[in-house]
Amino acid sequence: MAFKATILTLYPDMFPGPLGQSLSGRALEKGLWDIETSQIRDFAADKHRSVDDTPAGGGAGMVLRADILAKAIDAAAPVEDPRPRILMSPRGKPFTQAKAHQLAEGPGAVIVCGRFEGVDQRVIETRQLEEISIGDYILSGGEIGAITMLDAIVRLIPGVMGNMESADTESFETGLLEHPHYTRPAEFEGLTIPDVLTSGNHKKIHEWRLAEAERLTRERRSDLWYAYMADDDDVD
Amino acid sequence: MAFKATILTLYPDMFPGPLGQSLSGRALEKGLWDIETSQIRDFAADKHRSVDDTPAGGGAGMVLRADILAKAIDAAAPVEDPRPRILMSPRGKPFTQAKAHQLAEGPGAVIVCGRFEGVDQRVIETRQLEEISIGDYILSGGEIGAITMLDAIVRLIPGVMGNMESADTESFETGLLEHPHYTRPAEFEGLTIPDVLTSGNHKKIHEWRLAEAERLTRERRSDLWYAYMADDDDVD
Repeated sequence: MAFKATILTLYPDMFPGPLGQSLSGRALEKGLWDIETSQIRDFAADKHRSVDDTPAGGGAGMVLRADILAKAIDAAAPVEDPRPRILMSPRGKPFTQAKAHQLAEGPGAVIVCGRFEGVDQRVIETRQLEEISIGDYILSGGEIGAITMLDAIVRLIPGVMGNMESADTESFETGLLEHPHYTRPAEFEGLTIPDVLTSGNHKKIHEWRLAEAERLTRERRSDLWYAYMADDDDVD
Repeated sequence: MAFKATILTLYPDMFPGPLGQSLSGRALEKGLWDIETSQIRDFAADKHRSVDDTPAGGGAGMVLRADILAKAIDAAAPVEDPRPRILMSPRGKPFTQAKAHQLAEGPGAVIVCGRFEGVDQRVIETRQLEEISIGDYILSGGEIGAITMLDAIVRLIPGVMGNMESADTESFETGLLEHPHYTRPAEFEGLTIPDVLTSGNHKKIHEWRLAEAERLTRERRSDLWYAYMADDDDVD
């Protein structure tokens, strides 16, 4: 069974969107993964098909109703569905490359895309939604978060990338940001490619790349750098 | 002059994509912001329209050429263009809500979407590209990162959100994750809305929401919690 994503959303036309092109789009055509959407509004009970209501306690915005969203979740994923149920939410656990690997190895995901001010807390609890955030910023809804998360996952599904080696040296796979890249032409606006890279000495090239990756990580991401150094200590 | 995004990409058909719908789509129709794409491949010099080459020093993947990308950037944004030039890159500075505000107040952005293994370092240096990352995971290219970043920016452009108050209490705006939400029905599968929220006592409601926001942040995001506590110390 290929990885299957089921998206609960008020904007089903946003999918597959950019995921229908390039790497993930070709993988979709090949059947290496699958995506389906469920329109939350189809589970509304009134003739206006309303799905939200004002927040208890007052305040701006609207809240997605627990009863309607629960019906949509239950219809899309019965209790026996083994896939994790995820709510895209800025309050969630930060999405990481490790999580992308974990999800890529599983059967898929049921992804709830919030809108408005948020979703009623009771549906998060009763349906055991795992809250995931793609970053510390606010989006207009969960849809673009879901697209981002799926793009990171899909490329790790076996057979999707042409050359699996390509994934291993990337940023975050090693705990470090990736080293700088160079390619032809040898000279560009007076700038040349660092000599070591054209030396043919593979040991020196490896050492240079590691040193550059360490320097970039130290300079730009002290959080990753401390984690990398701590891991290193564990090994010793 | 409205905010204008110019996207340099090998996949112009990915835009506006999900940004053409919902909040950002309506704002696009109203002329509150604008987006245009530039196909990097149009600046290739050979008949195969190739834009990439093998990495100097060897290794997997391909690298986007400095000379071709520089031509595309110079055509899209002459030196006098005041907009920041951004490269979506996992090596970049993490994108935040504060950065979304900063960009939303400016004239727009020229956004370079990398593909393959990365882009030649010399075009980053000579064209002073600001590297921005939307999170600690690897995407198939910069396009979905650009869409994510723009969604966060566009909703902050004046006139785009109906009720600006809605933005002020959200996660990250206060340095805390947002409190839980509840709405009708009063009872859902035996679970009720917390009494305080239906009490009508606005002071108590505010205190409950702040306490919940602090609890969630402390439990889920020690990094944000320490930053919040440090800010609090500064005030005292």
